[in-house]
Amino acid sequence: MEYRKIKDEDDSDIESSLKGKSHSVASSNVALGGGSNERTNWKRKGVVTCALTILTSSQSILIVWSKRAGKYEYSVTTANFLVETLKCALSLIALTRIWKNEGVTDDNRLSTTYDEVKVFPIPAALYLFKNLLQYYIFAYVDAPGYQILKNLNIISTGVLYRIILKRKLSEIQWAGFILLCCGCTTAQLNSNSDRVFQTSLPGWIMAIVMALLSGFAGVYTEAIIKKRPSRNINVQNFWLYVFGMAFNAVAIVIQDFDAVANKGFFHGYSFITVLMILNHALSGIAVSMVMKYADNIVKVYSTSVAMLLTAVVSVFLFNFHLSLAFFLGSTVVSVSVYLHSAGKLR
Amino acid sequence: MEYRKIKDEDDSDIESSLKGKSHSVASSNVALGGGSNERTNWKRKGVVTCALTILTSSQSILIVWSKRAGKYEYSVTTANFLVETLKCALSLIALTRIWKNEGVTDDNRLSTTYDEVKVFPIPAALYLFKNLLQYYIFAYVDAPGYQILKNLNIISTGVLYRIILKRKLSEIQWAGFILLCCGCTTAQLNSNSDRVFQTSLPGWIMAIVMALLSGFAGVYTEAIIKKRPSRNINVQNFWLYVFGMAFNAVAIVIQDFDAVANKGFFHGYSFITVLMILNHALSGIAVSMVMKYADNIVKVYSTSVAMLLTAVVSVFLFNFHLSLAFFLGSTVVSVSVYLHSAGKLR
Repeated sequence: MEYRKIKDEDDSDIESSLKGKSHSVASSNVALGGGSNERTNWKRKGVVTCALTILTSSQSILIVWSKRAGKYEYSVTTANFLVETLKCALSLIALTRIWKNEGVTDDNRLSTTYDEVKVFPIPAALYLFKNLLQYYIFAYVDAPGYQILKNLNIISTGVLYRIILKRKLSEIQWAGFILLCCGCTTAQLNSNSDRVFQTSLPGWIMAIVMALLSGFAGVYTEAIIKKRPSRNINVQNFWLYVFGMAFNAVAIVIQDFDAVANKGFFHGYSFITVLMILNHALSGIAVSMVMKYADNIVKVYSTSVAMLLTAVVSVFLFNFHLSLAFFLGSTVVSVSVYLHSAGKLR
Repeated sequence: MEYRKIKDEDDSDIESSLKGKSHSVASSNVALGGGSNERTNWKRKGVVTCALTILTSSQSILIVWSKRAGKYEYSVTTANFLVETLKCALSLIALTRIWKNEGVTDDNRLSTTYDEVKVFPIPAALYLFKNLLQYYIFAYVDAPGYQILKNLNIISTGVLYRIILKRKLSEIQWAGFILLCCGCTTAQLNSNSDRVFQTSLPGWIMAIVMALLSGFAGVYTEAIIKKRPSRNINVQNFWLYVFGMAFNAVAIVIQDFDAVANKGFFHGYSFITVLMILNHALSGIAVSMVMKYADNIVKVYSTSVAMLLTAVVSVFLFNFHLSLAFFLGSTVVSVSVYLHSAGKLR
């Protein structure tokens, strides 16, 4: 067996690192022969999934850190706008590198048609709508209850994945998916969790609608990205993020126009704010990559495992106390990950 | 398809009910033809498992009921002795019916050889030793902690089942078994559960030894009962329970000699005590039946599901409050039951 040296080892951002990696793996597999295509896919899937897991868990740690450092002083809408802008910029940087190496082709040219681009605003619109709802749900559900109800996302993603993308999970994988939801919820149990039973009907409805919006946005993004498999992911990302920028600009105007007009766009920004924006941008790109090379189910597993990793890391960073419920939930999630892979349909 | 009417519908005890049922099923299957033997086994297994589940859950309800009615006033050792005696008597009643119907054969005669009977005292001795340890463990572990640690029984039974009986579970079934342990523990979580982390090393060692003793007793009983499959279960039970009576007589002398001598054997017995003794006797017989026609794994599932059933019934009987942890744990246990059956080795 012969392994070629990976060409690009000086990649400066995750985007090109992922691209570089998958490329060199692909070329080395030419030498290896049979089954290489599957192995390339498997490796690419593994790399983007690990990247998403690590980025998501460091994201939660940054949030805890920033909360320790004091309240959010910056406007969240401007930060979200900058995240979208940064993602757009990173996609363009990756594209210019690709154009230089491979030349401009039908699959990697930036220009698009109305037919291709007309569906790209939909996920951004769904997320915006979900984020707006989030402001109102706290009138009906307290914070611990909301943490618990958020796990409905897992179920809604699975159901919509089945219905909209018409992709099948085996019975064992469904069992694993139910366990993932139970395990994540168990790991988050605390003495206030039972309050979730006091949630009123409007609270339940809003929680379910939010779970459906979030699940639908995820599944829809996957459908868009997978519709044309040969299309370069950076072009697809670019268009997704352009609409993300546009919708977040609308959110700034609706929610924070006065604050931004009076105090300025960057009021309250700190070093940690910059780190959080960078992390969110890279996580966002990792999510797109997971949608392209894996699927929504892998994404949900990845972010759930990240939640557990965060808690373990927090033990060392913040003297966080792990409960028995956390150990039980983590074990259930681990078994669930095993079942997802053991239960693969042939 | 033709179903014969079940002959014995006036069975007065679970013993003959189980026997009668499996008999009539067997005879109806002669008419059905192919695969009937397997179906008979399956039905017999189902009946004994359901009986065990129902008896175990009503057992816990009787315990709650008796606690509500006041403290235990009777001596537990005399009650245990009576349970063994009643089981012996029921086995003999079942045997006399069988002798009348089928005549005395090598497999259903009561007389035994030293080689056959020498292993029968071992499970009774192990249980006695475990019960004695139980008095000491509370010096190291509090009651909620003990409830949690008792779930180690599930793991010890699985491991000993594998090692001693050399019977294989598929990977999916092992996953199910780990989930069963997690699910049962989750369902029992309350605000005091985290105290289990404060258990000292001697407490852990005693809990593990107790789990091993209990698992070993169960697995050993199965080995004894299954060693000679054609041997009538009532004869095997009779000898098991004779030694149970003997060891419990020893326990009366060690623990309650003064109380029994001064206040009498039946001091403090009430209607509910009699019900509990009856229930324990029938549950004990159901356990033996499960060991004969199914196995220890089915027994553990059955008693775990019974634990959940008890809680649900208690909602109606005692205005019991179900926690979110209970719902999560129950869901995990349900998935685990599914995995045990879906993951069967071919």
